[in-house]
Amino acid sequence: MLNIAITAGGTSENIDGVRKLTNVSTGNLGWHCLEAVLDYFETKKRTDFRVIYVLTETAYRKELSEKQKPFVEFISVTDAESVYDAVDKLTKTVPIDYFIHSMAISDFTFTYAVSVYELAQEICSSLVHLGTDELTVIELLENPMSRYNVNEKISSDDNIVMGLKRTKKVIPVIKQNNPNTFLVGFKLLKDVSEDELINVANHLAEKNECDMVFANEVSRIAERNHSGILIKSGEIIARPVGKKQIAETIVREMIKGIES
Amino acid sequence: MLNIAITAGGTSENIDGVRKLTNVSTGNLGWHCLEAVLDYFETKKRTDFRVIYVLTETAYRKELSEKQKPFVEFISVTDAESVYDAVDKLTKTVPIDYFIHSMAISDFTFTYAVSVYELAQEICSSLVHLGTDELTVIELLENPMSRYNVNEKISSDDNIVMGLKRTKKVIPVIKQNNPNTFLVGFKLLKDVSEDELINVANHLAEKNECDMVFANEVSRIAERNHSGILIKSGEIIARPVGKKQIAETIVREMIKGIES
Repeated sequence: MLNIAITAGGTSENIDGVRKLTNVSTGNLGWHCLEAVLDYFETKKRTDFRVIYVLTETAYRKELSEKQKPFVEFISVTDAESVYDAVDKLTKTVPIDYFIHSMAISDFTFTYAVSVYELAQEICSSLVHLGTDELTVIELLENPMSRYNVNEKISSDDNIVMGLKRTKKVIPVIKQNNPNTFLVGFKLLKDVSEDELINVANHLAEKNECDMVFANEVSRIAERNHSGILIKSGEIIARPVGKKQIAETIVREMIKGIES
Repeated sequence: MLNIAITAGGTSENIDGVRKLTNVSTGNLGWHCLEAVLDYFETKKRTDFRVIYVLTETAYRKELSEKQKPFVEFISVTDAESVYDAVDKLTKTVPIDYFIHSMAISDFTFTYAVSVYELAQEICSSLVHLGTDELTVIELLENPMSRYNVNEKISSDDNIVMGLKRTKKVIPVIKQNNPNTFLVGFKLLKDVSEDELINVANHLAEKNECDMVFANEVSRIAERNHSGILIKSGEIIARPVGKKQIAETIVREMIKGIES
């Protein structure tokens, strides 16, 4: 039995119950990867597999055919923390053979919002008492007293400052829990040369033990002409164009990666 | 000829080309209002109307029937500024009879992101030179030198602070440009009593000359059991339940508002 995990879509960090921090990811590429996996096994007439599809609320999703349904299990997530928990639990309980990690997970989560006037006043009155001290200012910028209460809707009367803290990285968990998983990572950058894209992708691969990385640039991710480079062991092994072809290439090279 | 404008969906403020600030609005209620308007005129066998439907990228949208298409014109918008420009232009060029303003427009737009360490350093070094001065700190919190460049992807190495500035309010423009428009406003609040909801809705109505306001609470906006109160001249005139009934009630009361 082969276990294949796919993550898809963009996470959403709650700000005040109405506003949220999201990203441009649609989940389309992840869905194409699911379809490419299902097609691959259907063509090979193999039924000894299942897909665990982890998706966010806004991720693209279609109805599966009755034939496909028994092979796919869905796990819904919302924010970065919920993805971390879901992936950690999944990879601790299921020996995943292939992991396509296409979800765009927020690097930051909301900690507070505060009126600029309130925060400036708080900083000044602290510094008057304590002297000009960088650590004091860092603490105030990370956790001001004058912040809006949790889930209080933020007033639109003043300009505001928002504090954001880093989220726990999800990708390192995958190989930590299952060193034998074949891991496909994704990197989306903006306004970079191909050389820079390759450098960053290789860095990602090394740091998180990705077996393959699909790297792309944000101006080239539309449905029809989405293009990017597939990198394995530091080398470009394919330059697929269009989400369907990208997904098929990833799945083909990934399965070859274990079979060969 | 009756001109009816509807705005729908939630705006999206760009942060760095990948991340964005959005809100929970789906645009479903706006779409139901469009359908209620089309149904109303079909039932009355009237063709002397058109709808201008202003919607955001993520707003819910269905295919219209061939019969409906000639009556609806779509205008696409993205962030708060683009909504302001579109509504200002529309209401200056078209004498709108009814305006259903259901779009959730961000009160804030992104101005900068900065590492907390960099910002703390900048504040301290400024204050050492200039003395502890609140205005200096406000200026730094609104426009720090140490900020990430525009559209530079924000590094996930440090916790960050984001500066957000208020956007121009769209709703006052509607009556300023067309004092005779019948304006329906919407208010979404969180964790408030019905009395508070009514107070805030009345305040909105007064400030922006809304002829009717639909007020609702964020825990009660699901598709099937969406509920809220429709307020006219400070009085609750209906308590519809479900998006379809809410939309039908709004449209019926709105058209009665001019016809009577």
